[in-house]
Formats: sequence, structure tokens, C-alpha cells
Amino acid sequence: MTVVINGTVIDDGFAEAFPMKATRILITAHNATWARHAAVAASGFATSVIACGCEAGIERELGPDETPDGRPGVAVLLFAMSGKELVKQLERRVGQCVLTCPTTAVYAGIDPGPSVAGYGDRPPEGAQPGLGRPGAGQGEAVALGKNLRFFGDGWQISKLIGGKRYWRVPVMDGEFVAEETTAVVKGVGGGNLLLLARDTASALAAAEAAVAAMRAVPDVIMPFPGGVVRSGSKVGSKYPALGASTNDAFCPALTGLARRTELDERVGSVMEIVIDGLTEAAVGQAMRVGMGAATALGEPAGLLRIAAGNYGGKLGPFHFHLHKLLPEGSGA
Amino acid sequence: MTVVINGTVIDDGFAEAFPMKATRILITAHNATWARHAAVAASGFATSVIACGCEAGIERELGPDETPDGRPGVAVLLFAMSGKELVKQLERRVGQCVLTCPTTAVYAGIDPGPSVAGYGDRPPEGAQPGLGRPGAGQGEAVALGKNLRFFGDGWQISKLIGGKRYWRVPVMDGEFVAEETTAVVKGVGGGNLLLLARDTASALAAAEAAVAAMRAVPDVIMPFPGGVVRSGSKVGSKYPALGASTNDAFCPALTGLARRTELDERVGSVMEIVIDGLTEAAVGQAMRVGMGAATALGEPAGLLRIAAGNYGGKLGPFHFHLHKLLPEGSGA
Amino acid sequence: MTVVINGTVIDDGFAEAFPMKATRILITAHNATWARHAAVAASGFATSVIACGCEAGIERELGPDETPDGRPGVAVLLFAMSGKELVKQLERRVGQCVLTCPTTAVYAGIDPGPSVAGYGDRPPEGAQPGLGRPGAGQGEAVALGKNLRFFGDGWQISKLIGGKRYWRVPVMDGEFVAEETTAVVKGVGGGNLLLLARDTASALAAAEAAVAAMRAVPDVIMPFPGGVVRSGSKVGSKYPALGASTNDAFCPALTGLARRTELDERVGSVMEIVIDGLTEAAVGQAMRVGMGAATALGEPAGLLRIAAGNYGGKLGPFHFHLHKLLPEGSGA
Amino acid sequence: MTVVINGTVIDDGFAEAFPMKATRILITAHNATWARHAAVAASGFATSVIACGCEAGIERELGPDETPDGRPGVAVLLFAMSGKELVKQLERRVGQCVLTCPTTAVYAGIDPGPSVAGYGDRPPEGAQPGLGRPGAGQGEAVALGKNLRFFGDGWQISKLIGGKRYWRVPVMDGEFVAEETTAVVKGVGGGNLLLLARDTASALAAAEAAVAAMRAVPDVIMPFPGGVVRSGSKVGSKYPALGASTNDAFCPALTGLARRTELDERVGSVMEIVIDGLTEAAVGQAMRVGMGAATALGEPAGLLRIAAGNYGGKLGPFHFHLHKLLPEGSGA
Repeated sequence: MTVVINGTVIDDGFAEAFPMKATRILITAHNATWARHAAVAASGFATSVIACGCEAGIERELGPDETPDGRPGVAVLLFAMSGKELVKQLERRVGQCVLTCPTTAVYAGIDPGPSVAGYGDRPPEGAQPGLGRPGAGQGEAVALGKNLRFFGDGWQISKLIGGKRYWRVPVMDGEFVAEETTAVVKGVGGGNLLLLARDTASALAAAEAAVAAMRAVPDVIMPFPGGVVRSGSKVGSKYPALGASTNDAFCPALTGLARRTELDERVGSVMEIVIDGLTEAAVGQAMRVGMGAATALGEPAGLLRIAAGNYGGKLGPFHFHLHKLLPEGSGA
Repeated sequence: MTVVINGTVIDDGFAEAFPMKATRILITAHNATWARHAAVAASGFATSVIACGCEAGIERELGPDETPDGRPGVAVLLFAMSGKELVKQLERRVGQCVLTCPTTAVYAGIDPGPSVAGYGDRPPEGAQPGLGRPGAGQGEAVALGKNLRFFGDGWQISKLIGGKRYWRVPVMDGEFVAEETTAVVKGVGGGNLLLLARDTASALAAAEAAVAAMRAVPDVIMPFPGGVVRSGSKVGSKYPALGASTNDAFCPALTGLARRTELDERVGSVMEIVIDGLTEAAVGQAMRVGMGAATALGEPAGLLRIAAGNYGGKLGPFHFHLHKLLPEGSGA
Repeated sequence: MTVVINGTVIDDGFAEAFPMKATRILITAHNATWARHAAVAASGFATSVIACGCEAGIERELGPDETPDGRPGVAVLLFAMSGKELVKQLERRVGQCVLTCPTTAVYAGIDPGPSVAGYGDRPPEGAQPGLGRPGAGQGEAVALGKNLRFFGDGWQISKLIGGKRYWRVPVMDGEFVAEETTAVVKGVGGGNLLLLARDTASALAAAEAAVAAMRAVPDVIMPFPGGVVRSGSKVGSKYPALGASTNDAFCPALTGLARRTELDERVGSVMEIVIDGLTEAAVGQAMRVGMGAATALGEPAGLLRIAAGNYGGKLGPFHFHLHKLLPEGSGA
Repeated sequence: MTVVINGTVIDDGFAEAFPMKATRILITAHNATWARHAAVAASGFATSVIACGCEAGIERELGPDETPDGRPGVAVLLFAMSGKELVKQLERRVGQCVLTCPTTAVYAGIDPGPSVAGYGDRPPEGAQPGLGRPGAGQGEAVALGKNLRFFGDGWQISKLIGGKRYWRVPVMDGEFVAEETTAVVKGVGGGNLLLLARDTASALAAAEAAVAAMRAVPDVIMPFPGGVVRSGSKVGSKYPALGASTNDAFCPALTGLARRTELDERVGSVMEIVIDGLTEAAVGQAMRVGMGAATALGEPAGLLRIAAGNYGGKLGPFHFHLHKLLPEGSGA
């Protein structure tokens, strides 16, 4: 069955995604600019778990009414293959990029539950419900300020507010405040869309439109630079040492040359958007929004086809069928 | 007939738009940052012709392969109600914000045709076809460097390249290069989408997603701050001196109070996106892309309804029917 | 007497500045991004009073503890030649670029004193003293929300807090809140530094360093694009119709050609930084900081000389002598 | 001997810095925005070698006349404690953040010399001399595209231009071009300035002004978020497991409490700027420019004192004495 929207062919295929471990941290600061400095640094070099240790990105900007301390902030999502690796990356990245950054504080972005049994789990004053939801009751509390506090060399003190413990660590610009724990929850990694376009300009336009629209979806990040990746890979390589290599079937320069070509001669450029999310629904919603923006540009703007990457469905338990994601009421 | 996409109701209505005069200029500089400084200044305070003299905005960033001088640049679109007013605004804005800005040069973004009869009208070397298209053969050449050159106090010199005249005006950082003319063409102003949402957060998310996606559409700008306007107006006011006033029918705070209410109690926030474009097709495409991104977020994200503003259809010759704009293959 | 710092010659000259009328507004929003959208638009096309009506710019970002409503914000300064013109520009720019911008509110950035006699003049809760200082007791209250309120078509309501009146105007995204008045105070316009450098790269580096450092000085703006102007002008022109023309004495391309040349053959590029400030002290401090950053780069970085523009001292009452501005302890 | 500039005390002390290994890469793309996306990702999470593997940052934006392929670009500097670690980080970061990023290419930013003996070492057409200088003749060539090319699974091809080898690797958006090698040279890490100020606002203002001005200095980066670090550390901790802990002598919250206090009660906030550079001269110049900008703000702006961090001079071979860095003509 073929679906064509606005001249763009939507493959009858699916994106195959995998379980990951995820957490969210809220970084606040004296103003939005300094919160962003810390968030950009902490989520940098985090495009792929394979060589970066985790996948991370800025989820969105937070107004003062959305943060525990009433300051402007930024929500950052981090994903890894295991809770152990995630905790390691979290401690390193927060220790190197948030603890170090002028005026910042860091809080759990997913409710880790009460720090002390019997304290109940009222969220910190001013905490924004939405941000606490995903992990409530189901997340595993892991160290956030719990270990960073030792940087205080004994001068650190803690405070309990609404059943949550916060550490106050003396630093040169005053105090670094860090919530004791954040919650690690199950996440979904590797949702994806492949945009096949006429040329570089039309591929960039479709990818930029899709990513920009997808940024409005909560609980997801697009971890690659600018949200887009152009170096799709296949499993295996002619070089035994390498486990992966360029996905020649999707390289326009190899159309007609590669053993297996997925492209026809009209396709001049292909770009992929990879999505990690806190839930299967969030990843699906992001893919839906990306397809909505891209297909509205459609074939008149040079977008010829939308596909998705999978491994035959045997490896990843999450299958996002493109046709099923199309908004109800569309499709034909 | 009702269309519902992803839970969002699409009104069976239309946006009513008006003829405007339009032009595009290409601002280049030593690097992209300085081209942007000039473009932001030149297109500032230009949200509405009523009090700003023109409506202007950054269309997109230009790579060196897209500019006449092989430097990075920015394309700016300007719209006014008359060619006379547009020329006045163009001279003022370029004179105050581009001529003044370190390392910049300015070129026609719509082919004004040959500067001198008999020179043929080959585009300047390196000019990007797309950018020259809209005006070719149909635009009216108006002064760009033609008058600004006199700032050179007699030291200015001109050069003809491919039938186009360029002025080189000595300034403190070296030379200001300005093409003699740009083309004024017919444009379309006032395309619009009204996004009715559950609350501020969902209205912002839908508007940000729509505007971000629409920025990938060529030949259009969204002239309001961040591309969005929240102060929709109706014609007339209880104060005789005022010709327009708040559109009470779309003010959530007045639901049930205003004489005529367009909202139901579920609508907590309404935002409008206004579009000016070089062609009717471009405005329609921008509205289509905005609806595509917004409806993909849909009712689950709090977007309840999409409407459009019109004056009964008697004033503006361009009618953009929302249902007709929906991508083929969607709807029903 | 010659002063040379780090190889850069500091002229024994002065910048000549003029009285202006000035005001500050505080724009707040749901988050810092939307406050910035409004501020950028409202302060756009405002490089020079001659053709823009006013000179305006972003003074700095504001944390929630620095704004009347506890939201993130941006402080904008506006300058004009007369209070009348400033009020006209203020109403237009706020009406077109702030009233229209989603989620924004606008407040006096200079204390206009009590809105109603007898109400005392306690500053609004949360108002940051510094921002209120300059005008206190000396400013003239002018309309901010006072006239914009009529957009509410009768639905607007007002509230008195700490002796200040605030207007709440129903708009599509909820309410636009605007303080009734702001204060117009005496300001100083036209402070300037001329950076004479070896080439474009060294002139840009010195100008960027100086402007970036000057942005840390309160109560001033650098109104040109990116804070720098390269089209210095002299009074008069060979064309009777024009009152000003390129400052040929400072054009490297004309060294040796122009009747009067201020440059030697080593100077390849000259850039000027123009400063408007709320007080003479603030303009002087900005010039001092700019010279500090630029001279620290110095001749090794290609900055050969720092000069200043004046009209012989007969026109402007404010004379900023470069040597007198040098930090105490420097000079030798 | 005491030096006081503009009311700010300059310590008679020195910053102690260490040898590092360094390299520069030039990232180009279809436009400046995409080059920046790749550069931000590749230089993220790189504030300190201890936990990030390297220290990296954006040196500056590059115009098309400054890049080998005539496209806009960004120069990135990377530093590590050993050449081995630097090569590892370089391959990972370029592989994950540049190879993956749409439309980018990567080139040596320090001349690695000819790729093949006998081919002469003319720089690639368009290469900007300045950027090639530091390593010329002295740098050690290390793999850039040399290993990344294998991603091409045999489809990669190479080209020699001016004695340099460039690899063209087929990817989904076309080709990834990478120069075979870049040069690793000796660098200097850990230059620093400590800004002691009255409160958070004045410390931020001084640090922002200093960093902004320092960005105009070539061959250096300030690797911490926003260029500033507030978590200064001392060697050792009361917790045996930790090698470092908060520098209590510089924590305002501990003034009078800590065994050794470097602050008096007037100091409310301290911020540090750490500088890594390709040469001792570059680090010294950056420190000079930072002091120039900061002291011009001076005590009237709340900057009370400038100090520098060292370990008694026994560990690091590079000693940057603050007094010696003061521009000639200033001081005393």
C-alpha cells in the first residue's frame, strides 16, 4: 500500500528503536544565557552512545515558573545503554559543565521520589508537574548532588524541602545547589526518519523544518548536530576491524554503483533525523510532527520520499510504522 | 463540512490577503555574523505597515555560492502598500543599517534586469538563479545603490558586470559595494493562521513549531516578533479616534463577556501567524507548512482549532481557504 | 603630549557629544527567548536619529529577580533629540513590537515616580533598584501603557501596586500588562571611539573586543549594527542637497587623494563605535572600557591608533578627552 | 609592589601553566549555521582534561576567504595532556560530530606539512596563511581523514592538492571531505585570571567583558562554559578518595571560617577565566586583554582585585606574572 502526501511518497516501512536508560536534569542560573552555557556544554559531544558514552541534548528552555528555584532554566535529557553508564556520564557531565558554570544550580527533571522515607513526596515548591511526571513512582533514584557534594570538602550542607534533599556546596561565586538525586527511567532510543530529497538545498530545508517543529514535542531530543545526521551506516564493513560503514544503499554518489541501491537517480541528498525519547509515545509524536512539517513542504519543495531505518525488526522491540504515525484524518 | 486532523478542527474558512509591493535585497559581509547584524537592524521595527512604514524580515541565510560576491549573506524581504513607500523605506533602511555596517555589501535579490539597455541581462557571476526568479522581466527597477552612492561625495565609482551596474563607495573600513537597483514586484500581504489552543504553553509550542517549519519556505516572511502576533485586532473601536481595537471575539479573557465570542471555554490562548510573500503560491505554501507542523502536534498537544482571519472577502483579492491548502492525500 | 599604550597611539583629542532625551523600558515574557524577540524588534532600525526617529538598543538581559513581575526580561534604552519625538517612537515601537509579541509585558525602566499623588512611591515589588535609579525624582513621566490601553476597546482594567498604575489589556493570548508611564530623562548621545587598524581583520577584532566589553557597562547602548559603524561622515557634501557625506579624511582608499587625510599608509581599515548613555559618566565609562579592551590587544594585534570624532567643540557640550578617560594608574 | 588600576588591585602574583599537546581543525559547511552546529557539538563536554579527555572550544568564525574550500567555517582548538590522547579525542569527536553533520568538511588548521614527500608543501588554494602558521615545520602530522576514510567501506577516494591529501567519503547527503592529517603542536594550558568582585552582578559583568574581549585573541580558547569557571579547586581533600576539592580560601561563604582565607569581607563573588593557547605569547596576550577589559570596568564597577592561580611555581614551567602582562605604558 502506497501513501503519497503532497507528492511525497511515505514508505510502508518502520523505524526500529531500542530500550535505553534516560534521565532529565533541570539547569537553572542567574539568567537564561548562563543556564544555556551550562546546558550546551553538558550536552555536547553526545550524538551517539557508541563513542560519546551517552546521547544528550537540550529539550527546551524553562521559564522561572517551571523551575524549583524560580530562576530561568534549561531542561536537558540524557540517554545511555545502561543505568550504570548513564550515572557515570551524568556525574562527569554535571561535574565538569554545571558545577563549574557561574551561578548555576541543578535539579532532578524526573521525580526521584522522596529522598527520605516518610517525608512524603510533595514536589519542591514551584516544580512544574509536567517535568516531574514521567518518572514518578517508576524511576530509580540515582546520584546527582549526592556525590558532587564532596567537592565541598566538608563545608557542604544539606536542606530538606518537601521531602527532597538539596546540597549547598560552597564555590567561588557563592554556592552550588544540587538536588541529591534524579530518577533514571526507561527510555526509547533510535527513532528515525530518512528524508530523500532532490538536492542539498531541499534536503536541508525539509530537515530544518522537521527538526524545528519536532523541538516543540516534549520528552524527546534529536541528538545529532543541528538535529540531523547525514552519515547513515550499515552493519558491517569490508574492513574486518570496523563494525559499521557508510550506508551505500542510501548514498546518492553510489546510485547504480553499490550492490544494493535504495535510491533512484532523482535523489540527490538524503538526511536522517534520529530521535531519543522518554516514552514510545513521545518518539512517535516527534516522528509524526517531523513528517507533518516535511510533507507539507512536500514534493514541490523537493522532498521526494520519507523512509525509516530498521534492522528487519529482529533487534529492536519498538517499531514505528510510518503509515500508522500519520495523523488521523490524513493518509487518503 | 468539517475537517479534523489529529483532533484539531480546521475551520472551513479562509485568510484574506492584499496586494503589496515587495522587494528582496541580499546583504553580504566578511562573515555570516556581520551580514546578520545588518539584516537584523534593517528588518527591525517592521511588523506592520501601519506604523512601521513597511513589513520586513530575514528570509534565509545564504551560502557564498548563493551571493554575487561569493561571501556569506542574508536575504531580506521588504513589503509596503505602495512602490513609493517601499522605495523610501528601502533607501532609509539600507542607508542606516547596511551602508553603516562593517564589511557589508548589498545586492538586488530580485533581478531588476539590465542596468543599461543593450548590455543583455546575464545575472551577475555567482548569482543564484532561484533568488533572481520572481522579478525577472516583470519587476520594476528601483534605486538601491543609485542614490546611496552620493554618500561618496564624488569619490564613488561604478562598475558594470554582466549588464548590472555596481557602485563602490569609499568608507572608513574600505568600500561599500551596492548594486545600482533592485526590482520591486507585486507581493501578497496578510496571509494568516489563527492557532486556538488550550493554554499558553500549548499555543506557544504550536506557534513555534509552525513558524520554524515555515521558515523553510522560500519567498515569504513572518514579520511579527518571533513570527507570531498575539494582539489580533478588529476594525473599529468604541473610541472614535481609533480605527482598530482588540479582537474581543478571540480574547479568552472575554469569552462569554464580549458581544460576539468565537471561542469556547476550552480555549485558553490564541496566537496568529501573519505571512507576507512574493507570490500567492508562496503564501499558500507557507500556510500549508504551518498547518502541517501544527496539526501533527494536534489536539494531544493542546491545539484545538485552526482558523483564519478575513474581512468577509470583500476587501482582499487573495482568499486562502484552509481546507484547500491541506496537502493532497490528507483531509477527509 | 602623546600617550602610547601597548604600541597603540591614543590621540590627544576628544569625542564631542550632545544632549538627548532618553528612557528605558523593561520587556518581560514567559521566557527569555520571547522577551528577546520583542526587544530585538522594538530596537531595530534605530541606528541614527536622523532617519530612524530614535536610537535604541538592548542594554542587557534581566533575571527574574530584576523585573517587576518576576519573569525573565530584557532592558531596552531609547534616545531621541526631543521628548516629543521620543514619546512618539516609544508608543509606535512598543505598540508594534511589544504589544504584539506573545506573552510579553512592558514596564518603566526608569522610575517615573508615583502614578497618583499620595500613593507614595515605593517601587513595584521586585523592582531592581539600579534600574530605577537614573530617573528617580528627576524624570518626566510619559505615556507607556497610558495610551496603549485603549487598544482594549474598553475591556482594559488598571491596577495600582506600590503607587504605580498598571494596565491589563485583553489580547488573544491572555492579557498584555503595561505600566502606565515610564520616565524620560536627559541623556547623552554621540560618544565615540575611532579605531584605526592595519587591516579589516585587525579592525574587526579590536571593534568586536571593545563592543563586547562595553556591553558590560550599565546605562549605555552602542546603536549601530553589531555596535560598530564604518561609514563615518563629515558635515557637508559636494552635492548641495546632502548635508553630510563620507568622511574622506578617514577613508583608507583615499589616503593621499583626499584634500585632508587623517591617515597614514599603514592604516587599512577604520571602525567607529558610537555610544549613547543615560549619563555623561556612563558614556565615559563605556569609552574607557572600550579603550581598555582595544589597547590590550594593541599594536601587536594591528590596532595602530585610537581617535575620537568632534566638531571643534563648538556644538556639543559634552567633551570626552581620550587621555582623561584612561584608567588612573595607566598612561605613564 | 602594588599596582592599582582604576581602583582594582592587581596582585603581584602569577598564573602557572603547563605544556599540553594541541591542534586546530577547520570545519566548513554549506553555510555558517551548519559549520557552527558541528563545531559546538565537537567542542562540547570539553572543559577539563581530567574528566573530558580534552579541552576544546571554538576559536573563531571563518569567512570563505579563510577556508580551503571557500565555504564559511569555524576554527576549533583542541588540547590534551598527550599527543596520544589528543589523537584519540580528535578521531572520536570529528567522527561523531563532524562526519555526521550535514554538508560539513574538515581540514587541518595547522599545517601538517606535505602529505607525501616530494610533493612540496604549497598550502591548499585559498588556505589562510595565519591559520597554518603555528605548526609549520614543527608540528607532528596525525590522522584526521586518514582513519575516518574507512567509513567509506572502500568507496572513498583521495585527491592530492598542493601536496596535501584529501579524502572524499560517500555519505547520504553527498560526500564528506576530510584532509588526511592535521598537525599536533606543543601548547600551553592553564593560564588563568581570578576576578574578585563585590557581588554576583559585578563579577559576571567583569568576567563577561573579559571573555568577550579575549575572544578576539587568536590561538586561544577559554574552555569552560561561557568561558568562565566558578568552582576553583585546591589540591587534596578531607576525603582521601578525592584529589581535589573546593578552593575554600576563595569561597566568599567561607571567609573567616576556612583555615586560610584569601578574601576580605568586601568580596562577594569570585570568577576564574582559564585559557589554553597554542603559544605562551598567545596565552599572555589573552590574559593581557582580559585584564585590560576588566580593569577598565574597575572598582567603580565592583571589580576589587585580580589574582592568578599557581602551585608555587614548582609544577608548571610557564609563569604569567600579572604585572609583567600589563600593557607597556600602563601600571605604576
